[in-house]
Amino acid sequence: MTASDTGRSAAATLGVVGGGQLGRMLAEAAAPLGVEVVVLDPTPRCPASTVARDQVVAEFDDPDGVRELAERVDALTLEIELAGPDALRAAADAAGVPVHPDPGTLGLVRDKLVQKRRLREAGVPVPEFRRVDDEDDLRAALDELGTPAMLKARTGGYDGRGNVPVESRAAAGEALATVGGPAMVEEHVDFDRELSVMAVRSAAGVHTFDPAENVHREEILRESVVPARTTPEARERADTVAGETLAALDGRGAFGVELFEVDGRVLVNEVAPRPHNSGHWTIEGARVSQFEAHVRAVLGWPLPAGATERRGPTATANLLGAVETERPVAPVVGGDDAVTPEADGATVDLRPALDSPASLHWYGKRRLRPLRKMGHVTATGDDPLATARRVRDELGFR
Amino acid sequence: MTASDTGRSAAATLGVVGGGQLGRMLAEAAAPLGVEVVVLDPTPRCPASTVARDQVVAEFDDPDGVRELAERVDALTLEIELAGPDALRAAADAAGVPVHPDPGTLGLVRDKLVQKRRLREAGVPVPEFRRVDDEDDLRAALDELGTPAMLKARTGGYDGRGNVPVESRAAAGEALATVGGPAMVEEHVDFDRELSVMAVRSAAGVHTFDPAENVHREEILRESVVPARTTPEARERADTVAGETLAALDGRGAFGVELFEVDGRVLVNEVAPRPHNSGHWTIEGARVSQFEAHVRAVLGWPLPAGATERRGPTATANLLGAVETERPVAPVVGGDDAVTPEADGATVDLRPALDSPASLHWYGKRRLRPLRKMGHVTATGDDPLATARRVRDELGFR
Repeated sequence: MTASDTGRSAAATLGVVGGGQLGRMLAEAAAPLGVEVVVLDPTPRCPASTVARDQVVAEFDDPDGVRELAERVDALTLEIELAGPDALRAAADAAGVPVHPDPGTLGLVRDKLVQKRRLREAGVPVPEFRRVDDEDDLRAALDELGTPAMLKARTGGYDGRGNVPVESRAAAGEALATVGGPAMVEEHVDFDRELSVMAVRSAAGVHTFDPAENVHREEILRESVVPARTTPEARERADTVAGETLAALDGRGAFGVELFEVDGRVLVNEVAPRPHNSGHWTIEGARVSQFEAHVRAVLGWPLPAGATERRGPTATANLLGAVETERPVAPVVGGDDAVTPEADGATVDLRPALDSPASLHWYGKRRLRPLRKMGHVTATGDDPLATARRVRDELGFR
Repeated sequence: MTASDTGRSAAATLGVVGGGQLGRMLAEAAAPLGVEVVVLDPTPRCPASTVARDQVVAEFDDPDGVRELAERVDALTLEIELAGPDALRAAADAAGVPVHPDPGTLGLVRDKLVQKRRLREAGVPVPEFRRVDDEDDLRAALDELGTPAMLKARTGGYDGRGNVPVESRAAAGEALATVGGPAMVEEHVDFDRELSVMAVRSAAGVHTFDPAENVHREEILRESVVPARTTPEARERADTVAGETLAALDGRGAFGVELFEVDGRVLVNEVAPRPHNSGHWTIEGARVSQFEAHVRAVLGWPLPAGATERRGPTATANLLGAVETERPVAPVVGGDDAVTPEADGATVDLRPALDSPASLHWYGKRRLRPLRKMGHVTATGDDPLATARRVRDELGFR
């Protein structure tokens, strides 16, 4: 080693299970703090890998891979619930490093039935729900909860996958076959709007960002806007419920608390033990982003008072894969003749976003899939939602 | 290749000669745009390397190294004037990629005498100066310009290195020996304050950020504050002079224009053809940072109207190596017992910055040197300069 190679360059090295866009944005937020990131992801050259220092190529719950990751870092975290709680706990213990969120919390949250039970036991308001192991269970539950209702796979679902609306008692068998495994069913909530709160537990306590109002279609988040267009009382209630939710869950880090607002009440729909799509607005819209807050919290670093304060009205719109079948994708800017897409490939012209007052976040994914999250745009200032939507609508996949 | 490996992930790949903190912050700004960065730097694991996709290890002006870099990217740029204009031009031509700033501009700016001549020819206000090849030249110049005066090495100087104040005619010989090569001498400017303007030439024209007021000590930038604490007329004049300066220089990209304000006049002290320390405030303080603006400009991408607008009062303070001799350094946070510094090593506790309302930027350098730029902090809101200074003063190297 030469003299220039010695010395410890990083203030800390953070290991992240999962290397998608959340891992990428964690790495972007970590860099200014002097924090280096190593990600674990089964896809070589995953979106986070080009911003992270390095990538361990392994399945999310591979014990050897997670152990290799743990040995190279000062603390472990995750950006995807497919991380294995047991592998995380074992690797962290073997390497003697902390892991957050707590693997017990991850295991609990990964099972939607167990998650809801924990919240209900803690007195957190949630929709009515029942465990469903077979058709008899489901029919009995529908008799109590009424139809329509929402049947949910207990594990493995995300972006609406694994969620099946049940319109009638007669549809129970088919719905259960579609879900195809252990399930739960929830009463239909005819919500006035969907809200979410990013809440962060640091060593100093729980911090919450302003509630976002979220617009979903086909169960995929399309847009978030802050402040949520509701009453001050509902925003206050959302903040309170998010705090109650965190009180029921151990471990440090950021948690995305998805909420239904209905007739002035606020119910918890789902909790994600990590940074969340509906919190992307915090990058431009808050003093410290959900990603920086998560990095600080996981490392046990301070998160001072006021860190989560909103800077101004902010909105984000997701850039989703508008294609019917999976294919490679090449981003271009304007008339970029140098790019020859593959035979079956698509291009997306990012120029409208770069020409706009919105901030572009392109995730660097190599494959376009129907409704896959490829990037997002964030607008601030007057009517940010209109700006974000306009820019999103101008971006086309060809 | 598996299916997941195909497709082009990056909207563009940018090659950066130099991998110090400016390269690191360029990579941080590039990532959200979907732009991947490859840096060239002679120091393995240089500060930018952990955020960039990859590093070419080579001297800044090594023709083979620069050519290897050019072959892997869509456009070339630099973050250090030690980049070689000839190597850049040859590599860019061979690879068929653009290079910005223009190598001709780089060559011109690298020689302080040639730089000043170009500016004077273009009618840009500059201090009086003379070429100095030997002691006779210097004495003759001092007779005209008076003493004190500033003797400057024509090339290779930065952060005040290569600048020698000449207090009297009798000191000419010693000053010239200290500089040790081709030089120029400038009249002493008894400035009221130092200002700087970050100006960016994009495909659409020239954009300027608000003028910063800069505080130097020992010729090293200590603090910058925006808005500059001067008259609206002086700020307007600084903006105008920066525009005139860019009109005299070819090529796209960000330029740091260092200025003296004296009796209501504004003179150009020096131009840097790259992002500049005095523009770090733009990360938190402007809608698009100098780094994002540089990335966009070099790639020929749009920089919309309003992109360089200030978000609010902002100040930065540099974190300089407060040591007398070079040594390895380990950043820590609070009582981090896990870190055992090397025998001759120093530690720096980052906790006061993380506890404060200021934003931390730690560059990840492995070696502490006297007055070396190790990081910076940025404050916004009321009296940001006082906040930035307070936080800086609380950070200690031990």
